[in-house]
Amino acid sequence: MDSPPVLLKPAVCLLSGGLDSATCLAIARQEGFRCYALSFDYGQRHRRELEAAARVAGSLGAAEHRVVSIDLRAFGGSALTSDIAVPKAGVDPGIPVTYVPARNTVFLSLALAWAEVLASSDVFIGVNAIDYSGYPDCRPEFIAAFAKMANLATKSGVEGRTRLQIHTPLIELSKREIIQKGAELGVDFSLTHSCYDPDGHGRSCGLCDSCRLRLKGFKEAGLKDPLEYAEWNTSENI
Amino acid sequence: MDSPPVLLKPAVCLLSGGLDSATCLAIARQEGFRCYALSFDYGQRHRRELEAAARVAGSLGAAEHRVVSIDLRAFGGSALTSDIAVPKAGVDPGIPVTYVPARNTVFLSLALAWAEVLASSDVFIGVNAIDYSGYPDCRPEFIAAFAKMANLATKSGVEGRTRLQIHTPLIELSKREIIQKGAELGVDFSLTHSCYDPDGHGRSCGLCDSCRLRLKGFKEAGLKDPLEYAEWNTSENI
Repeated sequence: MDSPPVLLKPAVCLLSGGLDSATCLAIARQEGFRCYALSFDYGQRHRRELEAAARVAGSLGAAEHRVVSIDLRAFGGSALTSDIAVPKAGVDPGIPVTYVPARNTVFLSLALAWAEVLASSDVFIGVNAIDYSGYPDCRPEFIAAFAKMANLATKSGVEGRTRLQIHTPLIELSKREIIQKGAELGVDFSLTHSCYDPDGHGRSCGLCDSCRLRLKGFKEAGLKDPLEYAEWNTSENI
Repeated sequence: MDSPPVLLKPAVCLLSGGLDSATCLAIARQEGFRCYALSFDYGQRHRRELEAAARVAGSLGAAEHRVVSIDLRAFGGSALTSDIAVPKAGVDPGIPVTYVPARNTVFLSLALAWAEVLASSDVFIGVNAIDYSGYPDCRPEFIAAFAKMANLATKSGVEGRTRLQIHTPLIELSKREIIQKGAELGVDFSLTHSCYDPDGHGRSCGLCDSCRLRLKGFKEAGLKDPLEYAEWNTSENI
């Protein structure tokens, strides 16, 4: 007997175009959600990730992909959105200059807005508290506080129709485990982009925190990163 | 003896251009803050309020006024940002169609981003739980949950350098009291704009919820609203 057609539940999936959010989207799809992928053009210097996000959304069967523009450069304060140089000397402890003030708060707020319009009570975000580069808004306690606030912020929350759930399937995984999970779910990592400071040909620098964490993850997973790097000897950078 | 020069504490003040946020900014100035006024171009049909915001920021001595664009129309779902008609038959109980999904969450998130860059731990927002048109994100419990989340979201919060405070000086005031307070502090109400659906000449409609609450407030305060209304007999609308 055929199973009856299933009306999939909608979920908003934040999608940067990096390997974490790609894997997160693949997990949401595997869990049976109809995925509405959301990316932001926020003045990031690595805007190439938006093209990666569109490719990833298509390849993983997102129902829709929207890119919302917000000019976070208006406030400055980060190496990702201003003229502060991206550090390349290695991953330091503490909060790095690539931290964008309140970025995940802003992104989750906009995901919440879309979720409310879609009558969705599920938001997926690929944050990660292990290899997380020290960003405060990637921690479980932040996510929990956001969900609590969100349920007081919305019409559907107040009317008791839905209870927003923020899914963070990667939060306790190492970069190695994220890559293994993504590979298992068929994520095409050649479509993703992680580098904070790609060169004019779109090649990853191999030296910024994001490249280093990615390369280390692939090495530990025993897999080859399909991306092209500007630096040849990438194994030295991890 | 002269008092020593005082280095004013910076505060981010959300400023829509309406009378509530104008009064809120006047209160922040009176409390001795150096005010950074923040407005949003979010695709609202009453964009005339942005001109009002600029006039108000200037007249009340804000240190700076920034307008950040975010296209909330990308999500739809509100009479203020889409083709749903603005209701004019009177103020209904419940959450009206002029509610913009997650609007205050998005606005406060962006205020938080600017506050972090300014090393400010104070944000002012003119929300009001009394004559608040039934929006869920104007309630004290929402504001408290946002502040809690914000302190987990930011570099300065995590490092224990600051503890964000969200000031809501109007939250327990009626519209009448807000108007009286604003008048007392010298707010020039002729510079403000409240109407959701002004006509081509910039005149307020006198019939939407926002006009009705405003007119009722002025009447109760025993003051004359200096704005021009498209409908002559405004006293019938309140």
